Amino acid sequence: MMVIMKPGHTTEEFDEVMQRIKEDGLDGHAIVGVERTVIGVVGLDRLHPELADDLEVMSGVEATVKISSPYKLCSREFKRDDTVIDINGVKLGEGTVTVIAGPCAVESEEQLMKTARAVKARGASMLRGGAFKPRTSPYSFRGLEEDGLKLLAQARAETGLPVVTEVMSEATVGLVAKYADVLQIGTRNAQNFFLLEEVARTGKPVLLKRGMSSSIQDWLLAAEYILAKGNRDVILCERGIRTFETATRNTMDINAIPLAKEMSHLPVVADPSHGTGKRKLIEPVSLGMVAAGADGLILEVHPDPEHALSDGAQSLTFDLFASVMEHVGNVAHAIGKRMEREAAVRAG
Amino acid sequence: MMVIMKPGHTTEEFDEVMQRIKEDGLDGHAIVGVERTVIGVVGLDRLHPELADDLEVMSGVEATVKISSPYKLCSREFKRDDTVIDINGVKLGEGTVTVIAGPCAVESEEQLMKTARAVKARGASMLRGGAFKPRTSPYSFRGLEEDGLKLLAQARAETGLPVVTEVMSEATVGLVAKYADVLQIGTRNAQNFFLLEEVARTGKPVLLKRGMSSSIQDWLLAAEYILAKGNRDVILCERGIRTFETATRNTMDINAIPLAKEMSHLPVVADPSHGTGKRKLIEPVSLGMVAAGADGLILEVHPDPEHALSDGAQSLTFDLFASVMEHVGNVAHAIGKRMEREAAVRAG
Amino acid sequence: MMVIMKPGHTTEEFDEVMQRIKEDGLDGHAIVGVERTVIGVVGLDRLHPELADDLEVMSGVEATVKISSPYKLCSREFKRDDTVIDINGVKLGEGTVTVIAGPCAVESEEQLMKTARAVKARGASMLRGGAFKPRTSPYSFRGLEEDGLKLLAQARAETGLPVVTEVMSEATVGLVAKYADVLQIGTRNAQNFFLLEEVARTGKPVLLKRGMSSSIQDWLLAAEYILAKGNRDVILCERGIRTFETATRNTMDINAIPLAKEMSHLPVVADPSHGTGKRKLIEPVSLGMVAAGADGLILEVHPDPEHALSDGAQSLTFDLFASVMEHVGNVAHAIGKRMEREAAVRAG
Amino acid sequence: MMVIMKPGHTTEEFDEVMQRIKEDGLDGHAIVGVERTVIGVVGLDRLHPELADDLEVMSGVEATVKISSPYKLCSREFKRDDTVIDINGVKLGEGTVTVIAGPCAVESEEQLMKTARAVKARGASMLRGGAFKPRTSPYSFRGLEEDGLKLLAQARAETGLPVVTEVMSEATVGLVAKYADVLQIGTRNAQNFFLLEEVARTGKPVLLKRGMSSSIQDWLLAAEYILAKGNRDVILCERGIRTFETATRNTMDINAIPLAKEMSHLPVVADPSHGTGKRKLIEPVSLGMVAAGADGLILEVHPDPEHALSDGAQSLTFDLFASVMEHVGNVAHAIGKRMEREAAVRAG
Repeated sequence: MMVIMKPGHTTEEFDEVMQRIKEDGLDGHAIVGVERTVIGVVGLDRLHPELADDLEVMSGVEATVKISSPYKLCSREFKRDDTVIDINGVKLGEGTVTVIAGPCAVESEEQLMKTARAVKARGASMLRGGAFKPRTSPYSFRGLEEDGLKLLAQARAETGLPVVTEVMSEATVGLVAKYADVLQIGTRNAQNFFLLEEVARTGKPVLLKRGMSSSIQDWLLAAEYILAKGNRDVILCERGIRTFETATRNTMDINAIPLAKEMSHLPVVADPSHGTGKRKLIEPVSLGMVAAGADGLILEVHPDPEHALSDGAQSLTFDLFASVMEHVGNVAHAIGKRMEREAAVRAG
Repeated sequence: MMVIMKPGHTTEEFDEVMQRIKEDGLDGHAIVGVERTVIGVVGLDRLHPELADDLEVMSGVEATVKISSPYKLCSREFKRDDTVIDINGVKLGEGTVTVIAGPCAVESEEQLMKTARAVKARGASMLRGGAFKPRTSPYSFRGLEEDGLKLLAQARAETGLPVVTEVMSEATVGLVAKYADVLQIGTRNAQNFFLLEEVARTGKPVLLKRGMSSSIQDWLLAAEYILAKGNRDVILCERGIRTFETATRNTMDINAIPLAKEMSHLPVVADPSHGTGKRKLIEPVSLGMVAAGADGLILEVHPDPEHALSDGAQSLTFDLFASVMEHVGNVAHAIGKRMEREAAVRAG
Repeated sequence: MMVIMKPGHTTEEFDEVMQRIKEDGLDGHAIVGVERTVIGVVGLDRLHPELADDLEVMSGVEATVKISSPYKLCSREFKRDDTVIDINGVKLGEGTVTVIAGPCAVESEEQLMKTARAVKARGASMLRGGAFKPRTSPYSFRGLEEDGLKLLAQARAETGLPVVTEVMSEATVGLVAKYADVLQIGTRNAQNFFLLEEVARTGKPVLLKRGMSSSIQDWLLAAEYILAKGNRDVILCERGIRTFETATRNTMDINAIPLAKEMSHLPVVADPSHGTGKRKLIEPVSLGMVAAGADGLILEVHPDPEHALSDGAQSLTFDLFASVMEHVGNVAHAIGKRMEREAAVRAG
Repeated sequence: MMVIMKPGHTTEEFDEVMQRIKEDGLDGHAIVGVERTVIGVVGLDRLHPELADDLEVMSGVEATVKISSPYKLCSREFKRDDTVIDINGVKLGEGTVTVIAGPCAVESEEQLMKTARAVKARGASMLRGGAFKPRTSPYSFRGLEEDGLKLLAQARAETGLPVVTEVMSEATVGLVAKYADVLQIGTRNAQNFFLLEEVARTGKPVLLKRGMSSSIQDWLLAAEYILAKGNRDVILCERGIRTFETATRNTMDINAIPLAKEMSHLPVVADPSHGTGKRKLIEPVSLGMVAAGADGLILEVHPDPEHALSDGAQSLTFDLFASVMEHVGNVAHAIGKRMEREAAVRAG
């Protein structure tokens, strides 16, 4: 940490700041500039996360600047090699493009089984589907709950696709973990720290969506909560952030893909369904996210989007999904990657 | 809801849209304009929250526009009169300015008792203090937990001030409710819908902070989750939103005060400590929020901000708090209000 | 400036950075921490604005952090005392509340003269009115141009109110300056640097609106362009920033009022008409901005908002304006200020 | 436009709204819903851009909603086919990827000529370089002005590459147009409407950067200003928007590429240099933008970024540029496009 002193500070103020730094067992080194004096704090200031705040209110101090990153276990410095996560044999993060697809919400046996078969035939590696749905309004459909989880397990039994599903509540972590292969944390719970820790304790891989107002650093710190509990299998998922633009549901942050991969060793996937909110944009944005280095995509697919109980406007039909898969495969090859699974059914 | 058809849509497409509307038991009325045809959907479309999404993916449809507000119980239309909440005799929302003050986190008996006495003497009506703290980093101080709650109860016993404290986890709702008079939902849990419902069930008043990326509508919908469970005692709390500006911790949304009060009958308080993140800005922004119509303020006060375990940079000393209270009182009187409690100790 | 080296950088990389700093005639002082080495650059780095960028691309460098503020002439460090601007006898910034009022656009002699008389009678100190209007769409009404300026001059002649009007184009700076007492720079030209310099050269006071995506630092740097040309009479105007919230036209940044006044010696006024975009919010937000320390307000007033050629939705009627003035006066008195002019006509 | 009436409005209020609509020569058609009455306004309301504002302040009106898009000439509805722009034989927008490259600022003959030759050899179709530079601070390097333009013309003479350069001021439009093949409007002038019209009048193609806080609709309306003056050769350029994320200079809006191409017939290029602000992110984001359908890229290249007079941190070296070009070519082929020019020099 650096402490920037105000111009015209007194010697006494300077001494008190140096003293306060020493109270925490750290050292201060001053650099006297033309306009400002700066004090470098030497020592493991990550272990003193409140010191900056405390120094900032001291007389004579203008500001503090953090130098070290506040996360550790998820950083590239801590672990150079890419983390590869093995989910029932599906390897996510080893230089391939892994596609997770399925309906927004599990609605019925027929809807789910049809979709599971369709996405498998078109090259998906995993099945997604919500049994518990976070809804902005209390009057919206909120999922089939345990019945939905059972249907997901049935779809896995038939297709062999591992299952990714969201967990919204500490009370149901155990229940969801009984059925799911990957536990998803949604954007509205991205900083629900108790839930992050509860999910970490299951030992299951976690797909962690970025909060819609989380900076990349906030997102990595949320991952750090999970890693700090001993669970190293975190998949970061960029799903768009909230900005002033209203023409799309969110603004997909393509910069976050290569940047998160540079800052962290964890795999990063992209969610163009929520990142755009518009069916027509899903294919071009999927191609873009893969070209920018995403380790995978998570996509909403529905047999009949016009009658979907949630997110119809951003769900792909089976035909559109086949088109996305074919074109994503072409882009993956162009950048020297391959699809985690090849499709049996082609578009058109 | 209005459905806007694309220019050049076919008759068949139009008929299918009308048909889809009828499937949900609603009626469609078309207006044929010069450039666009618009279909007004007549009926209680709030009960069909997915219909808009479903219609948007239909061929020939350009967009849908919602007309009715998606919340009901917290709206002014539903209830004209201001909701007044009685918390152990403190009446919040009846045209007075109620100040809730105390440390960010409960750190020790001495720190809390000193602060509780100080804020009471200076005119606070309620005591705040965190026993469970949501921290961006897992390495930060996270609160004294039940020991903190016991200290809060002890402070209430001595001072008579009702206690407001945050609950972060469904698992601890019961525990927190045993000690607290008002349960606070923090900004990071503003859309943690299971927690909202669990808190609602306690029957205790809830102070609901706005999510840092929640629109005013999202915030009212979060309140609706609580009201829909039969708990009508929700205090809305504006605490700043996340924007591009980095000179302050958040951007305090002053517009939200009069607007939330126009849209809803619930009381609205403001949190200038988090809304600014800078001690020097707290007094002027507190005055501004009260002048704009806030029913109260929630403020962080600490006996020694230079050694606070959290949020030192935005905590007021006792002297500064006295100054805020005196000047807030002056502004309250200027707009025809009075303070919920008058201070025994004056600034300076 | 501080240069943060990557962990594991080589001695060679370090030496090259020190060398590059010396090339610009500055000195580097290293602090070797536990996790990072930081180099403090000593010297007037404001005169080397590109050095940070150049250093950031060097091998072994992680990031650079600027310490000194990049503006100078508008800073409090440069000038301790508040700048007071004298506009034909109206003193803005000397601890009073100065109200500038008038129609969004000058539409006709009758409309302008009626409004000018009405706002004068109700306590306005200056008259605003647009002769050149920046419009998002090329198909909107764009102002009466020179005819509008002549009407403004006529209104000044009758009422004695100094005139504030926007200049949008370098080519018309001379023309506008011939008629106006204060030249306004709109939010869309807040970083039109040629226009800022051209306006500065007239020597007339400048009312500089904050860009809708300008940070407070960007805004002060825009003011610095004017001051650097020798024109010290800049009035900063907060008019709301662009955020994700869509319920209001902009998000009024109340924090910016006390913060800009702390960082700069220039007077700061607020524009609740644009900052809210909603007529009902103008009074409460006006009161809030004054309570937070604004030196004045700029308000849109129209004799018949239902037939305004621009901004009808955010224009006050004469009665509403009288109400705002009366209540703003009360709040001003409560914080120890007075109105720059007292009203002859009261509300109600 | 739709006018949404408040619940409980009176018949008189309704009649006055219908009357006001008729005053503008338009028709109102009412739909009476369960909770709200909505009036559809039939007629060319684009020609009455103030009507919505005027109606919104009327008694009994809750809100208005615009249905038709406010732009016309740049819309897909107006012109179905993609606009292809011919710039001295370089065809932009005909299904190829056109790369515009060069230094941020023209600094010297040697720097520019070296760069021009290097980018040509590596496959660029056009040369960029700033002679007038918009700088946030008045103390930064602001360009060589006419000397810079002459060097650009010299580089064109030698390499045959058409020249793209920014124009910042109405007064210099004629001067810049004398030398440049494409006039660039920067993000800070994206709503400088006088400049847009002045540039339009030259008849030269215009590269229009999106304002950093412009919605896609604002951006298209800015283009409309140019088209409305009879100049149809507008190239839209996405360069990132301003959001809360601070890890990158801007947030590149990948959604805007396919969306702008759907809404408009104009070609759309991307600027990953400014969109990321970080050299390491430029290649992956360039690949992403091309995969998402961008018609081209504009990239900053410098022979010695460590000594650049501006934007060193986001400038590519010649080697990195060769790498970007090779990989962009691969992605272009994967999506069925080709590069506008093939490179003579390959990476590595």
